[in-house]
Amino acid sequence: MSTLPTPSTFPLDAWYAAGWDVDIGRTLLPRTVCGQPMVFYRRFDRVAVALEDACWHRLMPLSKGQLQGDQVVCAYHGLSFDAAGRCTHVPGQDKPPTRAAVRAYPVIEKHRMVWVWPGDPSLADPALVPDLHWADDPEWASEGAHFEMACDYRLVLDNLMDLTHETFVHKSSIGHDAVANTPLKVSHEGRRVRVERWMHDVDAPPFLDMQLRMARGFEKSPNVDRWQIIHFEAPNTIVIDVGVAPTGTGAPQGDRSAGISGRVMNTVTPKGDGSCYYFFAYGRCFALDNRNLTADIRAANIRIFTEDKVVLEEQQRMMDQLPGRKLVDLGIDAGSLWSRRAIAAMIEEERTRAEARRDEATGVAA
Amino acid sequence: MSTLPTPSTFPLDAWYAAGWDVDIGRTLLPRTVCGQPMVFYRRFDRVAVALEDACWHRLMPLSKGQLQGDQVVCAYHGLSFDAAGRCTHVPGQDKPPTRAAVRAYPVIEKHRMVWVWPGDPSLADPALVPDLHWADDPEWASEGAHFEMACDYRLVLDNLMDLTHETFVHKSSIGHDAVANTPLKVSHEGRRVRVERWMHDVDAPPFLDMQLRMARGFEKSPNVDRWQIIHFEAPNTIVIDVGVAPTGTGAPQGDRSAGISGRVMNTVTPKGDGSCYYFFAYGRCFALDNRNLTADIRAANIRIFTEDKVVLEEQQRMMDQLPGRKLVDLGIDAGSLWSRRAIAAMIEEERTRAEARRDEATGVAA
Amino acid sequence: MSTLPTPSTFPLDAWYAAGWDVDIGRTLLPRTVCGQPMVFYRRFDRVAVALEDACWHRLMPLSKGQLQGDQVVCAYHGLSFDAAGRCTHVPGQDKPPTRAAVRAYPVIEKHRMVWVWPGDPSLADPALVPDLHWADDPEWASEGAHFEMACDYRLVLDNLMDLTHETFVHKSSIGHDAVANTPLKVSHEGRRVRVERWMHDVDAPPFLDMQLRMARGFEKSPNVDRWQIIHFEAPNTIVIDVGVAPTGTGAPQGDRSAGISGRVMNTVTPKGDGSCYYFFAYGRCFALDNRNLTADIRAANIRIFTEDKVVLEEQQRMMDQLPGRKLVDLGIDAGSLWSRRAIAAMIEEERTRAEARRDEATGVAA
Repeated sequence: MSTLPTPSTFPLDAWYAAGWDVDIGRTLLPRTVCGQPMVFYRRFDRVAVALEDACWHRLMPLSKGQLQGDQVVCAYHGLSFDAAGRCTHVPGQDKPPTRAAVRAYPVIEKHRMVWVWPGDPSLADPALVPDLHWADDPEWASEGAHFEMACDYRLVLDNLMDLTHETFVHKSSIGHDAVANTPLKVSHEGRRVRVERWMHDVDAPPFLDMQLRMARGFEKSPNVDRWQIIHFEAPNTIVIDVGVAPTGTGAPQGDRSAGISGRVMNTVTPKGDGSCYYFFAYGRCFALDNRNLTADIRAANIRIFTEDKVVLEEQQRMMDQLPGRKLVDLGIDAGSLWSRRAIAAMIEEERTRAEARRDEATGVAA
Repeated sequence: MSTLPTPSTFPLDAWYAAGWDVDIGRTLLPRTVCGQPMVFYRRFDRVAVALEDACWHRLMPLSKGQLQGDQVVCAYHGLSFDAAGRCTHVPGQDKPPTRAAVRAYPVIEKHRMVWVWPGDPSLADPALVPDLHWADDPEWASEGAHFEMACDYRLVLDNLMDLTHETFVHKSSIGHDAVANTPLKVSHEGRRVRVERWMHDVDAPPFLDMQLRMARGFEKSPNVDRWQIIHFEAPNTIVIDVGVAPTGTGAPQGDRSAGISGRVMNTVTPKGDGSCYYFFAYGRCFALDNRNLTADIRAANIRIFTEDKVVLEEQQRMMDQLPGRKLVDLGIDAGSLWSRRAIAAMIEEERTRAEARRDEATGVAA
Repeated sequence: MSTLPTPSTFPLDAWYAAGWDVDIGRTLLPRTVCGQPMVFYRRFDRVAVALEDACWHRLMPLSKGQLQGDQVVCAYHGLSFDAAGRCTHVPGQDKPPTRAAVRAYPVIEKHRMVWVWPGDPSLADPALVPDLHWADDPEWASEGAHFEMACDYRLVLDNLMDLTHETFVHKSSIGHDAVANTPLKVSHEGRRVRVERWMHDVDAPPFLDMQLRMARGFEKSPNVDRWQIIHFEAPNTIVIDVGVAPTGTGAPQGDRSAGISGRVMNTVTPKGDGSCYYFFAYGRCFALDNRNLTADIRAANIRIFTEDKVVLEEQQRMMDQLPGRKLVDLGIDAGSLWSRRAIAAMIEEERTRAEARRDEATGVAA
């Protein structure tokens, strides 16, 4: 087992999404999580497994090998590893050395995603998996997708914490002048940040108007009250409660029954510094059986988030070109500011734990 | 405003060509000058503008945004900047912070080129624009072009300061054994270097022979006296007075009336270390209204200078592979040697000014 | 002449293959050997020449120039160099400076290969050329090929020193479970390592079975004794004596007359750190005049070694991603372990010689 690094841009002691449940199966899927090359697969009993993607012997990527039963056989010399990472066979030897193993990472499947814990396994508490329960709630319908992005994962989070950009980046789908012009309410506690924005008596943007008319049977689009309530959970997950209800039907006071709402589910996994996987899905709570609608919404999301991808990769490119330059925070960035602070606090806690472990190991008195 | 770096390979306090006048218009054109990303456009009144190409807020390249009137609107969050770089609008705020601005660079349009000053704006004296007046002199006809080159800008200057290479690199157009075999006269003063070479009683190379016969009506090509008088102006500009006149008509003594001459105009702009923009044009003083001839000469220039581009990029590639190795100077390099000294002197002056400013700022007594 | 570097991954004082004899002719061929750019060609008298591939003047790659008689003319300013690297012509000067020269490397042609010595020329003893005599022995037939590989040259050697991998990497041609399951005998002395493996009473793999039936006229494939005797010669060459003979005909005792054997000839030349040229040929000692068979075997070798190339480049990619991680040695790696030690000893000897030279130069007493 190798010593864990203490990176400065992401915490390791957290659950990160490695894939949607359907992404991981009976093939060997390589993914790099927090700088660590991993190979993912499912055992015969469907349990998902994550091993270090480098053979103990000569570092050959195990993902280039074969899955035989629940074991991975290396493509180079045929060393075999079980789902716990233990080497079970070495060619030319009766028994593998006892220390022969690759690292096996804690994995959990929840909310139709496979989550991996790249940090200290003793801290991998299943209760810490971010809440994306809408993804497998029978009252909601959704289907996920993902991108690989050539940018720091926090740029994706910044983007989601301030929806002002919708007005400029997503003009044709969800953008609206009202988004940029309406003030925010921001609150935070521990790892969580909440940003709320209400736009009153506006016309609904096409994506939500379509849903409202479909779910509630309106022939003509009414003026609406529109909400965006952003829930961030450090270090990687954002759920946005979005919706519209006809103005005057009481949504701001809590009665959403005349409107429709959705959940934009997002979780971002650092691949390394400057690149990440971005997983997303849009949950709706009407016409649950309409698979065409599910596919249409997924496709619309991919179109819209591709607009973000282009912007964020350009932003990263310029940050790389101007390495000394700081990002500036405006009023609209209050949410992102607090989310970055929560992430920084996790990294700092991790650094403190690592130092304590080192002190203990070298016998420094408490 | 960021502090200026003091680079070691090019001076910042100088006018550099950012484009031919026609290159810059009512679109947002990104160009990197001396390591600084800039966006160029024209105001409604046609005045050219250069702003830093990174939004003050989150470094999104402004060149990805929209030009609205004379303002640039950022593609990400819609911040607006006027032609002086001042932020005029921030979404979600009544007024932008007073410090909200991007750097605006001094720009001047002269000799049908747009010039930018990447260094200290207080030193941006319009009188320092390099002399390429033939480009807009009504007695001369020309049309410019440019390349991006994967080499240090000084390799392009070296190449132009020693035309010996014509014999080997441009065999089919302007090359001639006489060029390599004829000695040079070199003189220099301050920022200027002059290299003169006369070849007597030789046959004219095809490119000049074509012009001579066309301008003077010769049926058969006469033997000629041929001249190449190179004028360098540090740090970036070279004009070469080239021409031929029938031998015996007095050109060496100053009477060029029986011959033809042209001006090869060159100015090179460092993009960063190891890359540059190379702007060039060929001015002639006959058949001024013949647009086909102008286009033909421009195309011939592009062909010839592409031969240089191939050579210089190979040279740079090998310099990168052998980083410790020095370039050797031969007799033919006297011009290039003095031009590099003039550039080095400008860089050194700039370093001295920067130190003086630092001393002043920290209260060191004079 | 530049001072020689003392690299840590390959010795310089050794003969390295630059090409098969047919690769080098009357054109200028660039090849980088041990980090040193070289240009190869043949003089009119067919003698092979290696010069530094950077003009003494401005570092233009000489391989971009012209071969005129036995001289190389630089593509940029026409400097000429003879086959000893001496500059014979500089444009604009009567005589080249006496110090004007590029480095000429010791070259020797042997075993149908052109070998170059990138280190101290005074040590370039022709007797040190690795033994690949089967390549031009009239009793043997072969035809060589080569790859450029994006991996450290020692990964290729490791691969050849342990043929266990055949079972997994080359399933369809030469792989066999017996290879992985049969123990090795390893011996070593000085620069040489020998690894021997005998598999008794097994079926022959397709590649050897084809040869056995063809050479000995078997209609049906007999069970065989199969041998692999690997001869390593530091730092770069491996010859594998491979073969099969029908079980019971005495091959293990030394009588191979009922079987067939071949020689897998391999020599690897570091291009730099992390890349190399891999030269290989397969020699057989039957049906020597069958050119189609020679071509077929060469094609089969290219197919098989392409399987290695894929594996080794993946291994290198993962080593680059996990830079701190050590390779582990198993029992099957005994051969590779000793070969790496022999290489390391050569590098260490070279370092010691370099230090002695430095001490001598600075007058340190012995």
